[in-house]
Amino acid sequence: MLRKLLVANRGEIAVRVIRAARDLGIATVAVYSDADRDALHVQLADEAVHIGPPAPKKSYLDIGAILQAAVDTGCDSVHPGYGFLAENAAFSDAVAAKGLVFVGPSGDAIRLMGDKVAARSAAHAAGVPVVPGSMGRVASIEEARAILIDTGFPVMIKAAAGGGGRGIRIANNLAEFEKAFPQAAAEALAAFGDGGLYMEKVIGRARHIEVQVLGDGADAVHCFERECSLQRRRQKVWEEAPSLALSDKVREELCASAVRLARAVGYSGAGTIEYLYDDAEDRFYFIEMNTRIQVEHPVTEMITGIDLVAEMLRIAGGEPLRLRQRDIAVSGHAIEVRINAEDPARDFVPFPGTVGDLRVPGGPGVRFDSMLYPGYAVPPFYDSLLAKLIVHGETREAAIVRLVRALAELRIAGLKTTKPLFTALAADPAVQAADVHTRWLESWLDQHAGTLIPDPET
Amino acid sequence: MLRKLLVANRGEIAVRVIRAARDLGIATVAVYSDADRDALHVQLADEAVHIGPPAPKKSYLDIGAILQAAVDTGCDSVHPGYGFLAENAAFSDAVAAKGLVFVGPSGDAIRLMGDKVAARSAAHAAGVPVVPGSMGRVASIEEARAILIDTGFPVMIKAAAGGGGRGIRIANNLAEFEKAFPQAAAEALAAFGDGGLYMEKVIGRARHIEVQVLGDGADAVHCFERECSLQRRRQKVWEEAPSLALSDKVREELCASAVRLARAVGYSGAGTIEYLYDDAEDRFYFIEMNTRIQVEHPVTEMITGIDLVAEMLRIAGGEPLRLRQRDIAVSGHAIEVRINAEDPARDFVPFPGTVGDLRVPGGPGVRFDSMLYPGYAVPPFYDSLLAKLIVHGETREAAIVRLVRALAELRIAGLKTTKPLFTALAADPAVQAADVHTRWLESWLDQHAGTLIPDPET
Repeated sequence: MLRKLLVANRGEIAVRVIRAARDLGIATVAVYSDADRDALHVQLADEAVHIGPPAPKKSYLDIGAILQAAVDTGCDSVHPGYGFLAENAAFSDAVAAKGLVFVGPSGDAIRLMGDKVAARSAAHAAGVPVVPGSMGRVASIEEARAILIDTGFPVMIKAAAGGGGRGIRIANNLAEFEKAFPQAAAEALAAFGDGGLYMEKVIGRARHIEVQVLGDGADAVHCFERECSLQRRRQKVWEEAPSLALSDKVREELCASAVRLARAVGYSGAGTIEYLYDDAEDRFYFIEMNTRIQVEHPVTEMITGIDLVAEMLRIAGGEPLRLRQRDIAVSGHAIEVRINAEDPARDFVPFPGTVGDLRVPGGPGVRFDSMLYPGYAVPPFYDSLLAKLIVHGETREAAIVRLVRALAELRIAGLKTTKPLFTALAADPAVQAADVHTRWLESWLDQHAGTLIPDPET
Repeated sequence: MLRKLLVANRGEIAVRVIRAARDLGIATVAVYSDADRDALHVQLADEAVHIGPPAPKKSYLDIGAILQAAVDTGCDSVHPGYGFLAENAAFSDAVAAKGLVFVGPSGDAIRLMGDKVAARSAAHAAGVPVVPGSMGRVASIEEARAILIDTGFPVMIKAAAGGGGRGIRIANNLAEFEKAFPQAAAEALAAFGDGGLYMEKVIGRARHIEVQVLGDGADAVHCFERECSLQRRRQKVWEEAPSLALSDKVREELCASAVRLARAVGYSGAGTIEYLYDDAEDRFYFIEMNTRIQVEHPVTEMITGIDLVAEMLRIAGGEPLRLRQRDIAVSGHAIEVRINAEDPARDFVPFPGTVGDLRVPGGPGVRFDSMLYPGYAVPPFYDSLLAKLIVHGETREAAIVRLVRALAELRIAGLKTTKPLFTALAADPAVQAADVHTRWLESWLDQHAGTLIPDPET
């Protein structure tokens, strides 16, 4: 078992990791920038090390400063959380090179899944359905034309070295395609120093469904799926589990495919394999794998009873996977909403400030993961996520009613937050019927954003 | 289903009942005394009615004022919580006489279980082991002598009309007994207007174990046991489930006996059947039945996933029992500690005051049921219970570690609380080994009370 853990992150996920470490008897070291001297993760850790100014590049992304803090405090391990360095292969390698344990996969596994073309090939090789398109880079326009037979139009041309939505072009017909292809190659070369391209069919109306996996390098299990179709600008805002859209048969295939991929790459730690699910065709397609713990992991914890962060720490400490697939079962339904310091009535502009009165919702089936406390000044330098409100109920309907109740109890005075968005979404017939897709929320916001009244307590 | 519920209570249990009603879509009406104008239960309810001055007799015990509030606001039901009028048979009858639904058993069931001699007879008739002693009132000293053959010494002489520890004498030998018996009869007559006596063997070192039951009048199920052996002045301070002291065989017998009794009396609602369990002899004995929801109900909710208060509301609304015994299973271990506004270093003297900074513990497996909020002034007129911290873990050991973590996160500035007691108990080898009995904590406090340092944040 690990002895002393440096938590290379801030905010709610740093608090979450510290809690899991405490629950396992592992000592914790926080790191903090000038902006986070009073942060909750600093207060809750056994020790805290200052690592630099507020700018992330000079603190939470500074591999040297973080490793120095780990060595200086006698840590034997580092947890990267999510964001910042969590999917930085060089960081994983650098931690290992110092003789410390990286709580996550090897640099090679991060690198493999970080390369979208390689990840797609690995998925295909493991028998995981991928979006129709090229296997690997498309060497020429002649090769591309052959692939178009599979994809049809519209089709995406993607930079092999791109990611996060960058380096993508969409062609609606052959003429557009033949014009766009050489342009995309030139742009990719200029932007990423690599002109390689690959192609994918555009999946129209689809749901975002992802499978939580845990692996120990030798074996892997899944902890069922989450549905995260409610997104704004490709950011998930409402996540839930299980997905009501899947039949038991599709769920079984989907989860089995995720385990195959995790096993094929010898995955170690917690990971998420993301899919698009096309309702109309009843087909799912691999998109990518996230080689870290995700923001929305608590919904899986609520329906399975598994502490995913604790399992990550156990695996990193050298324990073989304790969970057997047959012991992992789903109970009820869970929903997480992301409470951000943003004004939903003004296009979600960030709204940093100081927390006044803070009322945390409670009772059965309610969990509140946050770094807030009364008097806490939210710094303007980082992600606007303040808190995750997670509810569990016997059914999805019961979970939604409980969500509304918990939102009504929640009070974060002094800030404008995304709370009104979720109260409105919970009352929407399409959300209640789970009849949504990844572009649904953007359209909904076009019509309803003006009605999202900021919290009266601000 | 019920439509509109009056919550005839205050504090955390009023908040708890309002949450359950909200989760079921039932409108809520709070009642409050002058001292509770700013109370959380008043803020969370849909409506609130002022019922009188702070003194309980003139507000929370005023049946007339409470019923008037229910009628005036158009309620169809009343939930009594625990304490105050919860086990007052006349209140249950009065609610029913107004044509409203009492969320709990009938006045007759409350009356039967409130009469200790009758309850003991009912248990015996249902085949539930009772403490050796008289069945019914002991008419004469000659009859008493015959019973002494079963009980041996020491033996308790109890007033049939007594209760809550009042009207009890203990005799250690025949001479003491023959002197005490007529004295006890005279005292009982003077104190309770009823000179009736009954007798029970004194069970020495024993655990307090209780079984949660749910009934709908026609059928009943159990939700397994809780152990509440850690008591101070007969008040439970730390409750947990399941009990490590029971073998599976004894657990099965115990729980089956509780269901037999609940069925025998046609019990409706949530109830608790309390037992003493003698480790050395591996025997359990019925003590009494509480005909209400109990303070410690959340530990059962945490290990079974059942929302007991919601089930009470469903049953009161006329739904037959939804839960089948075979569907009720135990997962993991849960512990609840009672955070009271008391100074543990000064013999637990009440410490009312105003809450400053409030930090609520969070993360997986942690629940905090409370009526506190930052700035709340705790009134001096009522019970000193501020909050219940409930933790769940895979094992008892994991739950204790999580309890310590959550206690460290909890901050209630401005008040002295019993928090240090639980931090100390969690570190005690006897508690860790679950090697305790109902008198253990009193002895422990004799030695350790002085070391319980009040919270540094006060």
